[in-house]
Amino acid sequence: MSLIQAKTPPGVMELLPRDQIAFQHFLDTIRRGYERFGFLPVETPVFETVDVLLTKTGGETEKQIYFVQSTGSLQQAKAPELALRFDLTVPLARYVAEHEHDLAFPFRRYQIQRVYRGERAQKGRFREFYQCDIDVIGKDSLPVAYDAEMPAVIYHVFRELNVGGFTINFNNRKLLAGLFENFSLEDGERRKLALREIDKMDKIGRDKVIDSLTGGDIALDRDLAVRLLDAIGLTGSNAEIVAALEAMPGDSELFHQGLSELKAVLEGLRALQVPEEFVKINPAIARGLDYYTGTVYETFLNDFPGVGSVCSGGRYDNLASHYTKSKLPGVGISIGATRLFYQLKEAGVIKADRSTSAVLVTQLDPSLSADYLAIAADLRAAGINTEVQFEASKIAKQLKYADRAGIRFAVLMGTDEQARGTVTLKDLTKAEQHDVPRAELAERVRGLL
Amino acid sequence: MSLIQAKTPPGVMELLPRDQIAFQHFLDTIRRGYERFGFLPVETPVFETVDVLLTKTGGETEKQIYFVQSTGSLQQAKAPELALRFDLTVPLARYVAEHEHDLAFPFRRYQIQRVYRGERAQKGRFREFYQCDIDVIGKDSLPVAYDAEMPAVIYHVFRELNVGGFTINFNNRKLLAGLFENFSLEDGERRKLALREIDKMDKIGRDKVIDSLTGGDIALDRDLAVRLLDAIGLTGSNAEIVAALEAMPGDSELFHQGLSELKAVLEGLRALQVPEEFVKINPAIARGLDYYTGTVYETFLNDFPGVGSVCSGGRYDNLASHYTKSKLPGVGISIGATRLFYQLKEAGVIKADRSTSAVLVTQLDPSLSADYLAIAADLRAAGINTEVQFEASKIAKQLKYADRAGIRFAVLMGTDEQARGTVTLKDLTKAEQHDVPRAELAERVRGLL
Repeated sequence: MSLIQAKTPPGVMELLPRDQIAFQHFLDTIRRGYERFGFLPVETPVFETVDVLLTKTGGETEKQIYFVQSTGSLQQAKAPELALRFDLTVPLARYVAEHEHDLAFPFRRYQIQRVYRGERAQKGRFREFYQCDIDVIGKDSLPVAYDAEMPAVIYHVFRELNVGGFTINFNNRKLLAGLFENFSLEDGERRKLALREIDKMDKIGRDKVIDSLTGGDIALDRDLAVRLLDAIGLTGSNAEIVAALEAMPGDSELFHQGLSELKAVLEGLRALQVPEEFVKINPAIARGLDYYTGTVYETFLNDFPGVGSVCSGGRYDNLASHYTKSKLPGVGISIGATRLFYQLKEAGVIKADRSTSAVLVTQLDPSLSADYLAIAADLRAAGINTEVQFEASKIAKQLKYADRAGIRFAVLMGTDEQARGTVTLKDLTKAEQHDVPRAELAERVRGLL
Repeated sequence: MSLIQAKTPPGVMELLPRDQIAFQHFLDTIRRGYERFGFLPVETPVFETVDVLLTKTGGETEKQIYFVQSTGSLQQAKAPELALRFDLTVPLARYVAEHEHDLAFPFRRYQIQRVYRGERAQKGRFREFYQCDIDVIGKDSLPVAYDAEMPAVIYHVFRELNVGGFTINFNNRKLLAGLFENFSLEDGERRKLALREIDKMDKIGRDKVIDSLTGGDIALDRDLAVRLLDAIGLTGSNAEIVAALEAMPGDSELFHQGLSELKAVLEGLRALQVPEEFVKINPAIARGLDYYTGTVYETFLNDFPGVGSVCSGGRYDNLASHYTKSKLPGVGISIGATRLFYQLKEAGVIKADRSTSAVLVTQLDPSLSADYLAIAADLRAAGINTEVQFEASKIAKQLKYADRAGIRFAVLMGTDEQARGTVTLKDLTKAEQHDVPRAELAERVRGLL
């Protein structure tokens, strides 16, 4: 029989066990953080009907859909009825619209699942990746105080993830829109185009943005464009930025509304005990999507600015207008966990973890097999993850196996020790070993863990 | 704008939050049990290349594949290159073959992920469902002692799942094959057909099985078929069945090998402290798949026999012969968690869980908003999952929300209490309330949880 090459499809992150354990801890930490703030778990199917899924898309996303077809449907050359989700927002909208009458509002959900995009394959870009989302959805209205809670959750989760310094940048789209009004850029379409250009600032630089703003369909006066970018480029402490924004001329109602929301978020963050150094007003943050209508967030790792935003999101006016007439405003954020984990692992910040098993009971003498199983049963009953080796291979080989698998302790027992009622407990991280009475083994291991 | 109906695709299990919390606990319990026995986590992508995936299939499975195509591939009318996994065994085989040189053998992995089958849609059958698998893979060989470990894990996990009584049935395919030899059914193809018929015993009954065995391509002598089914239909204690098997005439080498493995498993189960009442030799268990070569398992819930086997598996000679020349024998089991959870929920054994949030801090007086956030921050710092209500709606409405969401405690504080430095702690499960000094709140809640 000729062999088929065993190969994962391109663009996925598949991990060896010790890396998978590290990734699992990573996801568990995020989940625990989300639950700490009172978010409830939701899971949705990996596919949605094409009808539901393709309401929001347009442009790039539409080209990146993975369609799904059963054998029968494919054979009959039908058009696909299903497609893999490309984010968790469309499934959330569908979920809330479908289960609206069974949910308690404000509805706080977290969702940690994989999404799929037919990206061009390249290092660090994934076609399958985890998103870890939280959203709060209100019915008819949702106070701005919820906008302050999002950075508080990000702060909590990223501290727990132990990824070094980070800065949560936030802004308000109304403030931006108000600035546009003040700078005579009132038309909706031009404003959208201008927002998209401003969103590219980090990538293409200020000069190119000014070129775009003054040319093409935006055609802003150069002087206005420069003053606009000066306003957007404000730096300093949050208090200084607020003061500078307050001092700005112009009477746009939107601008004042945005500024007042921004101040409310700042105030909420103080009450939530988020240290000022972790949250930063950044008037240049626009978020490309038209979807956002108020507060927007982007989070950067201080030591790895090149990674880009690792947690983004914002406030939107209406989650599910495609599926229901109910007005469902909300605010949410998303962590792209696969890419973040991958980048941190590449950078050496995250390392392969120890095994989930704490103890390997070795097979020193096959005639004592039943004892080895009994020892393992005792350890497990004490809540200690334990593996038994059943292959009576050379003991050096068994210890090497444990070390390679990342198991910290090995238990050895020969007939002499059995007669004495003791075992040898080896700590493989320290090359130490102790004679331990068998009855005290579990307690001893627990003490050392 | 006309609305699109918000609807999950047919054949998936999508849960409301409190059911999702119960399901999450269910999966966590399985995962914890698997880790307790030293199994390591693995996750594989939801899709595999068609080449890799379609090596094992044939018959029914092939008709139930979901193929995956990107927008571009679909537009160019290409044949799909990807398909969703239909079990976790093929991905395991591919994983072990691909990463063979980076893994430590015996390789013990658990995998808890969803799989996809284009089943006919009907109540209780799912197109997307979780499988929770463990396998131990050896290199070249794997001692039979590992076969005893599998029921020990099942025993541990199902006890923790708290699903009432259950019985782990086990058998050995060599024993069956040996019986066939003894009953002059030596030809490979006839034996396979006979195994498949015997596997249907529960569904079609003894008489129909005898008809099948004596007719068609199997054409066994009726007298032999009856004696074969008598052997397979043996009942009694495990010791009685072993004694009856030992007393059987016939000199098939396979039969004696199978019997000796069966006895080794029984012995191992005793050493692993699995009570005899939970494990039962059942010579009728065949498992349809040709894949299994030794010990096979099926697990039944005593109170719900109609549900069928809720945890099955067995020993196989070679995991990944399609992908590698290495010989990789293994043994494994699988829990179909979605279907099991669904059935237990329908039967009322599993109920919607309380919220993952323990406390709702209510919004009694908007001027105290900052205090509410500070109270929440204190509770969270103490490890208590806490939600803050920011809508200053009527307090009765806020309490109703908490009750509906399954949150146990509500914290209320007005200006009077603020002045006194206390809060009101309401236990919504008991309609009790206490005046608690603010500084002692976290400790009090922890004591009550």
